[in-house]
Amino acid sequence: MDIKDIEKLYLHRQSCRSFDPARPVSDELLREVCRLALLAPSACNSQPWKLLAVTGEKAKQLAAGVQDLGMNKFASDAPAFIVVLEGTGNLTATVGSRFKNTDFLHNDIGIMTAHLVLAAEAAGLVTCILGWRSEEKLRKILLLPEKTRIPHIIAIGYASEGYETREKKRKPMEDTFVLLK
Amino acid sequence: MDIKDIEKLYLHRQSCRSFDPARPVSDELLREVCRLALLAPSACNSQPWKLLAVTGEKAKQLAAGVQDLGMNKFASDAPAFIVVLEGTGNLTATVGSRFKNTDFLHNDIGIMTAHLVLAAEAAGLVTCILGWRSEEKLRKILLLPEKTRIPHIIAIGYASEGYETREKKRKPMEDTFVLLK
Repeated sequence: MDIKDIEKLYLHRQSCRSFDPARPVSDELLREVCRLALLAPSACNSQPWKLLAVTGEKAKQLAAGVQDLGMNKFASDAPAFIVVLEGTGNLTATVGSRFKNTDFLHNDIGIMTAHLVLAAEAAGLVTCILGWRSEEKLRKILLLPEKTRIPHIIAIGYASEGYETREKKRKPMEDTFVLLK
Repeated sequence: MDIKDIEKLYLHRQSCRSFDPARPVSDELLREVCRLALLAPSACNSQPWKLLAVTGEKAKQLAAGVQDLGMNKFASDAPAFIVVLEGTGNLTATVGSRFKNTDFLHNDIGIMTAHLVLAAEAAGLVTCILGWRSEEKLRKILLLPEKTRIPHIIAIGYASEGYETREKKRKPMEDTFVLLK
């Protein structure tokens, strides 16, 4: 793989809001995408995360948990979700975060999430990272303890027929890159 | 690109702590890697980041800012650094973060950082994400305003001769994946 391949991957992958509700994702493929995501690096290798892959009836229930205030209606068509649970990190990473007054944990979760959505794209799937969600509803549906944090949930599936990525649309803002010597 | 290619990329890319000090990275390549990183998605497309690519004399100075308490000595050999600056995000993302009590900003910075290090890997470079840094020192060297946050800084260059990635080393913890229906 060279830099042209990765450019193509980055440009082609985008948040999809048009899933084919009739095309489920196999358990094997969900497992494989998550396995690759879990290879992501993290501060002090703390891996402060867990992934729940959810399909079938439970996925239908989950879709409701990301639609409050009328948001994310497309989620009803997603055949599966990957729920990202926040871990606690290990002691070294936690102490490092405090000493350096920074948020390694959410940074790490972002790094892993990027690995996940890029692996899904390479597998021919489409994804949408949903930050707008009711953690309370999701916890109830998934029977998770009250303290469990769910930083986001990823809708995953196949794109609906005729869906086209708009590769040109995402443009970096001006003035986001400077070279210094 | 398929899922096998991405697996290879994820396994091969790892935090490198052995840079070839005699081999600089061209400005063009640094610019290209940053351009690809800046294609990363973010909450409400807020792109809450800026990147400073630093080489030459300034890079030597920066190396000192990541070595307090004797950490990261290898950074002295890195020919370049990419400094990640925290942006403010846009209004939609900021309001969303508050409503949903979550940290989109650091999540987004992690997502962009993953795009950056994977693009660098595809370009034949090696990287190490350094969270252990003195923001104060770095701000002084870079003449940045006091409020500027620097969530991390990425050492980037070519691996020293004989350096080998240990592809088998990074293993996801047990019990990080569950499938539900």
